[in-house]
Amino acid sequence: MSERLIVIDWGTTSFRAWLVDRVSGQVMETIPEGRGLTAMAGLSFPEYCAARLAPWRESGRGAPPVLMAGMVGAPSGWLKAGQPSVPVGAVDLAAGAVAAEGLSNAWILPGTHRRNASGDVDVMRGEEVQILGALALLDRPGGRFCLPGTHAKWARAEANRVVDFATFLTGEMHAVLMRHTILGQPAQSGVAFDPAAFDAGLTQAAGPDGVLHHVFSARGRHLYGTLPATGIASFLSGVLIGAELDGALARDPSIRDGPVILVGGAALRTPYERALAARGLDGVWVPADRATLAGVQAVAALMEVGER
Amino acid sequence: MSERLIVIDWGTTSFRAWLVDRVSGQVMETIPEGRGLTAMAGLSFPEYCAARLAPWRESGRGAPPVLMAGMVGAPSGWLKAGQPSVPVGAVDLAAGAVAAEGLSNAWILPGTHRRNASGDVDVMRGEEVQILGALALLDRPGGRFCLPGTHAKWARAEANRVVDFATFLTGEMHAVLMRHTILGQPAQSGVAFDPAAFDAGLTQAAGPDGVLHHVFSARGRHLYGTLPATGIASFLSGVLIGAELDGALARDPSIRDGPVILVGGAALRTPYERALAARGLDGVWVPADRATLAGVQAVAALMEVGER
Repeated sequence: MSERLIVIDWGTTSFRAWLVDRVSGQVMETIPEGRGLTAMAGLSFPEYCAARLAPWRESGRGAPPVLMAGMVGAPSGWLKAGQPSVPVGAVDLAAGAVAAEGLSNAWILPGTHRRNASGDVDVMRGEEVQILGALALLDRPGGRFCLPGTHAKWARAEANRVVDFATFLTGEMHAVLMRHTILGQPAQSGVAFDPAAFDAGLTQAAGPDGVLHHVFSARGRHLYGTLPATGIASFLSGVLIGAELDGALARDPSIRDGPVILVGGAALRTPYERALAARGLDGVWVPADRATLAGVQAVAALMEVGER
Repeated sequence: MSERLIVIDWGTTSFRAWLVDRVSGQVMETIPEGRGLTAMAGLSFPEYCAARLAPWRESGRGAPPVLMAGMVGAPSGWLKAGQPSVPVGAVDLAAGAVAAEGLSNAWILPGTHRRNASGDVDVMRGEEVQILGALALLDRPGGRFCLPGTHAKWARAEANRVVDFATFLTGEMHAVLMRHTILGQPAQSGVAFDPAAFDAGLTQAAGPDGVLHHVFSARGRHLYGTLPATGIASFLSGVLIGAELDGALARDPSIRDGPVILVGGAALRTPYERALAARGLDGVWVPADRATLAGVQAVAALMEVGER
């Protein structure tokens, strides 16, 4: 009987679990969705988790260990796991794993943080695992990473450790601009990606005026008929992703030296690859799920956990 | 009997009116507040305006002409007034004034717009009048302007005309970050201006990472204890005003050649003067009300309007 492992990616708005064969590394079964942190109000994390995993842990074969990554380790999650400072590698994440109170044979992996001499502080929970996993999948010891999302991360890894990173509010900013500002008012919801509007946003973002002006251009362009209501979401996406990319490049010009390793969900692949190309950069795409799985397995290999 | 003039500044969230002696230019009476555009839902602009102005127009002495500036001339306002392209001066605003349908002897002044070769389009309604008024008050033909607010404007004037400008979403951005994002969640409302947190935001904004990262630093700093909940609003204010100022400087480096003429409400004076000083710039303060009054009077002097 081979050893099994349960991997959980538990974020603010998502929950996914995989049952993995530790010897082959193959996924045996998947729970593709569940309650993210914001949907857990009033519910017990241990009870909810045990109920979701019951089919995998009450088979009479013993309970496979559970390793969780993501915001589940934040103060608003199950319990607070640490955030050791960069640099962090798989050894640090294994050493910092905390037992998930209320569920047997279950651990929450830590995140990481970094602090600059200038006083800037940044935080990460979940992406550090994906970065280590992507390195394993690509069989590389380091690289420059972009992890698109609500709070997009750009990171640098060396010698199989995350050594530096910065967060960009790209996804959340897009959501609030569309829902709560004058810019999004004329927009139509649920419209398709508009490549021309997105590219116009990327070009606008390359100007010197700064993102607070660039986003406002959506207003002027719409009022003067050069941006249709159906293109506002894509234009703002181009402005924000362009600003994120330009900020990351200004922060670390060495990003130009190699391909950017993009780790994300399928929906963000097209805009990010388009933005990288517009700035003359190459991208390598790694699906976020595969990165999480590979990362957690790499950490698990360093922990003394097994079926009980 | 001297001629009188009624000046109205009617914006998205504010309504103010002044009865002015046209010969001396002095304010005789003031209506300090009323319904802004967003509070007019279902109400008739002509009826509301007539009711507010009744004490000044039904005195048996005749009806003084009414000149209105601001978003009242936007599609969401009383009726759509034009927006002639920059450069615009008092002559252009006088020529573009449109009769306010439904109220006798009343006009709405136009705004202005500008378009760049790169496709960027920007719009203004009300600030063009304030800029011309501030030039009159300062007895100068030109200068570099900053008009803080929900949609902050930076503008350049030459030969008594607005020749270029750009809008920055500073005020509205601050409001949505505080109300609708993870950054504002721990914040406490109604707290006092925190100079240290504001200055930390200004310093953060001067870094290369871009505003999408700089605002996120409010999260990391708060989680790691270097930014109290009471300082989040001021920190984000520093980041955003710093980003606005740096964007304006990158757009037009000649801003460094002279004082920045700040036209605004009293609440924004301290942070903007502090931000200018932090970037090594001098500011000249002109209260927004005085600028509006002087600007509308300058336009009125070019129009053939009188008491009827």
